Amino acid sequence: DAPFALIAGPCQLESLDHARMLATRIAEAAEAANTPWIFKGSYDKANRSSLGGKRGLGMDAGLEILAAIKAEFGCPVLTDVHAPDHCAPVAQVVDVLQIPAFLSRQTDLLLAAGETGAAINVKKGQFLAPWDMAHVADKIASTGNQRILLCERGASFGYNMLVSDMRSLPIMAETGYPVVMDATHSVQLPGGQGTSSGGQRQYVEPLARAALAVGAAAVFIETHEDPDNAPSDGPNMVPINRLAKMLKGLRAIDDLTKNPG
Amino acid sequence: DAPFALIAGPCQLESLDHARMLATRIAEAAEAANTPWIFKGSYDKANRSSLGGKRGLGMDAGLEILAAIKAEFGCPVLTDVHAPDHCAPVAQVVDVLQIPAFLSRQTDLLLAAGETGAAINVKKGQFLAPWDMAHVADKIASTGNQRILLCERGASFGYNMLVSDMRSLPIMAETGYPVVMDATHSVQLPGGQGTSSGGQRQYVEPLARAALAVGAAAVFIETHEDPDNAPSDGPNMVPINRLAKMLKGLRAIDDLTKNPG
Amino acid sequence: DAPFALIAGPCQLESLDHARMLATRIAEAAEAANTPWIFKGSYDKANRSSLGGKRGLGMDAGLEILAAIKAEFGCPVLTDVHAPDHCAPVAQVVDVLQIPAFLSRQTDLLLAAGETGAAINVKKGQFLAPWDMAHVADKIASTGNQRILLCERGASFGYNMLVSDMRSLPIMAETGYPVVMDATHSVQLPGGQGTSSGGQRQYVEPLARAALAVGAAAVFIETHEDPDNAPSDGPNMVPINRLAKMLKGLRAIDDLTKNPG
Amino acid sequence: DAPFALIAGPCQLESLDHARMLATRIAEAAEAANTPWIFKGSYDKANRSSLGGKRGLGMDAGLEILAAIKAEFGCPVLTDVHAPDHCAPVAQVVDVLQIPAFLSRQTDLLLAAGETGAAINVKKGQFLAPWDMAHVADKIASTGNQRILLCERGASFGYNMLVSDMRSLPIMAETGYPVVMDATHSVQLPGGQGTSSGGQRQYVEPLARAALAVGAAAVFIETHEDPDNAPSDGPNMVPINRLAKMLKGLRAIDDLTKNPG
Repeated sequence: DAPFALIAGPCQLESLDHARMLATRIAEAAEAANTPWIFKGSYDKANRSSLGGKRGLGMDAGLEILAAIKAEFGCPVLTDVHAPDHCAPVAQVVDVLQIPAFLSRQTDLLLAAGETGAAINVKKGQFLAPWDMAHVADKIASTGNQRILLCERGASFGYNMLVSDMRSLPIMAETGYPVVMDATHSVQLPGGQGTSSGGQRQYVEPLARAALAVGAAAVFIETHEDPDNAPSDGPNMVPINRLAKMLKGLRAIDDLTKNPG
Repeated sequence: DAPFALIAGPCQLESLDHARMLATRIAEAAEAANTPWIFKGSYDKANRSSLGGKRGLGMDAGLEILAAIKAEFGCPVLTDVHAPDHCAPVAQVVDVLQIPAFLSRQTDLLLAAGETGAAINVKKGQFLAPWDMAHVADKIASTGNQRILLCERGASFGYNMLVSDMRSLPIMAETGYPVVMDATHSVQLPGGQGTSSGGQRQYVEPLARAALAVGAAAVFIETHEDPDNAPSDGPNMVPINRLAKMLKGLRAIDDLTKNPG
Repeated sequence: DAPFALIAGPCQLESLDHARMLATRIAEAAEAANTPWIFKGSYDKANRSSLGGKRGLGMDAGLEILAAIKAEFGCPVLTDVHAPDHCAPVAQVVDVLQIPAFLSRQTDLLLAAGETGAAINVKKGQFLAPWDMAHVADKIASTGNQRILLCERGASFGYNMLVSDMRSLPIMAETGYPVVMDATHSVQLPGGQGTSSGGQRQYVEPLARAALAVGAAAVFIETHEDPDNAPSDGPNMVPINRLAKMLKGLRAIDDLTKNPG
Repeated sequence: DAPFALIAGPCQLESLDHARMLATRIAEAAEAANTPWIFKGSYDKANRSSLGGKRGLGMDAGLEILAAIKAEFGCPVLTDVHAPDHCAPVAQVVDVLQIPAFLSRQTDLLLAAGETGAAINVKKGQFLAPWDMAHVADKIASTGNQRILLCERGASFGYNMLVSDMRSLPIMAETGYPVVMDATHSVQLPGGQGTSSGGQRQYVEPLARAALAVGAAAVFIETHEDPDNAPSDGPNMVPINRLAKMLKGLRAIDDLTKNPG
């Protein structure tokens, strides 16, 4: 019956000032909605649709920003890792390691992440069924680390489109691990703009609402002050100035779901 | 900001006594939740998975039951039609004609249904995109009848499975017509039991909740006192003794969505 | 080890002259490839994407043309039926009744078609698995008519696209009935042009070749002298002037498959 | 108009004796069919469905076997790589580096593979459209290495199933790079046995035939003397004693397609 956690931030870390500006706005919105929040930012986009896509600031610069945000705002921070040897250094700064969907079956990465003892948010591969995630969680849990989050981010549905199956949330919840709805990447149109992915920002809120109505423990929303000019995932990021109102509505559904009275 | 409408009843009409028993229970649940309701029952199952599946009572017997329920309970009644020449006689009794998903592109049926002047609930074909339904609605509206409901009931997702895309509801709502969530057939596993369809009753409530959180105008739920022994769609019907509690939860989400305060 | 049958003709019957012109060209191509052929033409397009799509000449005019082609060329003729009461009159002229994919589970239509004693070509619904077609065939066979053809025409694959699963052909062949590859509608992009369906004419030949390499008994190809201006299915019809060359290649694969030496 | 290349071998390398036994049989079959061949074997299965799945012999032992096979049989050898730093050492032995489907968008791996100068066989991600592979190839080609093969291995189709889209082969061929059909993994049922993947061995030959009928440049077939007891991918490997006959049929279709006479 605890409120859902908001995982929010830009797709890519751009600078400390930028991260601080967004974190300030997210903190305000989360406080107003009485929702705990986790700051999210990526230091490397390792699987862009095409070579021209920006990669990011790199691990050192990225971790510096995340450490500063964590110190300044007192919030947990999350970032994604792409190789086993990134896990330990990243876990020295970061509270939640995130496993990208494409890498959700890579045993060595899952084990290395688990061994850090940090919380692990594993995105469900677009090519996996929700029940397959029990085996993914087992890989992590084999390290003795049970601080696992399982995250829906859409399943492949024909070409260049995903579909979010709301059955996936209760199915993954049967593992006993908290379930996260990534409302940002679920509305991605992978490869849908030729050299980059398109997206359908207008469906972030409906999918987040739907997920909370079926009991999601956390919602993942990428946000930016100017999504259309962001270095990645612009088409599916929510403008930061819409976050507070959206969050208030999400929190109400969440409260209703977890405290049905 | 009006409450959602519940469309409920057995898959197949079995007898007047049976319909009356279910209608009594549905009425109680709907009243307790302060939700308007429509009684649903089919007189013919025209597209069973295999020849062995029961067809139903036939039009005359079916309409007699629906007329009796309507008179006794004062509720609107709904049934599905499968051929153009059924529309006029059915519309003499029934308030809402329903177009089955497989038949959602059959022009003659859509026109005949529209011409009755009755309300028309068109199920979205499992093979259609939500935006395709604007053209389906246009066919009906060409008769001058704009009393149209567009209904999500799952999209084909590989073999023997459907997926419910919550984006479908706001997309279909852009037509201006009310959107219905068929939470019963969306959890069907078509042909999943060899000679009949399987189903996942446990996801009816999550999908109905999700749909109301994104603003559905109505929810369609088939129900039965003993689903496992019902003549059709047993695996996805909700036991009648669970309806009242489910409905109360649905109504709370609906109220929150339509009156965000 | 008999050669595959070619089912070919325009999507819509347009006039006797037009049908005769196409039949002449098809006959030449089929003779050159030593392939038996069946003339195909529709008198009614009962499920157009939108109301603006042309419906066709109607049953009487259509059957007249088909009867003339049959008499003049000595070839069997095929057309599709959309309602049970069309089956008997159509079967008086036509050798093969075709059940449209959307209607492949409509029991009354299947039974009425079966009862004519004509051969029946059932298109597999875009929403069906190949193994589901055994039950469809059983419905027809229950009339005592075993002259059944099962036809692959693509399965729903996300929105507005189909995919042709080559496993489908051997799976359906396990019923013992001949299997047809509809290479024209398999490359349809349903609803892909907004008010009408798009198509990918360039993949008709690859899919037909693939199907014959896995043992298809017949191939269905719609053709037209000017597909881009045809009243329906233009985007996926093959220009008639390419048919002869394509057919020669198809026949060679077919011969290799059926007579592996 | 050159004959297709056969890429064949066990899923996992088991021992030098085992590899030699299979290579001997593959060589005989390939010679009889006049087909060039490449020996394939994995030293690490990095993304098993569950932790219990066997990982393999490791890089050192694996490369030793591949080097021995290459020396003994004079054939090129292929193996898959999972991390950027594996590429250089593996390329010292191996002729073709293979990028696993799940990793087909990992930029660092693609670049590291490209930089070795070896030929690169990239499997198309189950979550990618065929046209997305042009961007994948561009990443590799940016290293100056254009020795690229693009490989179809099935696209996600609902849960726990793949579908092979034959349009994919001509679409990927538009890049100008040779296209490979992985007939083994295309018939995988991912996660379909709970803790491991199932498969449909009986469709390997149909899919390979279909692919050659549409012009595939190479076919990938895993094979084993006792697939049901192999350490991985048993359900979709072809018994080695069926390879020679299958290959003869494949070569005939290939010849017909490339030399239509």
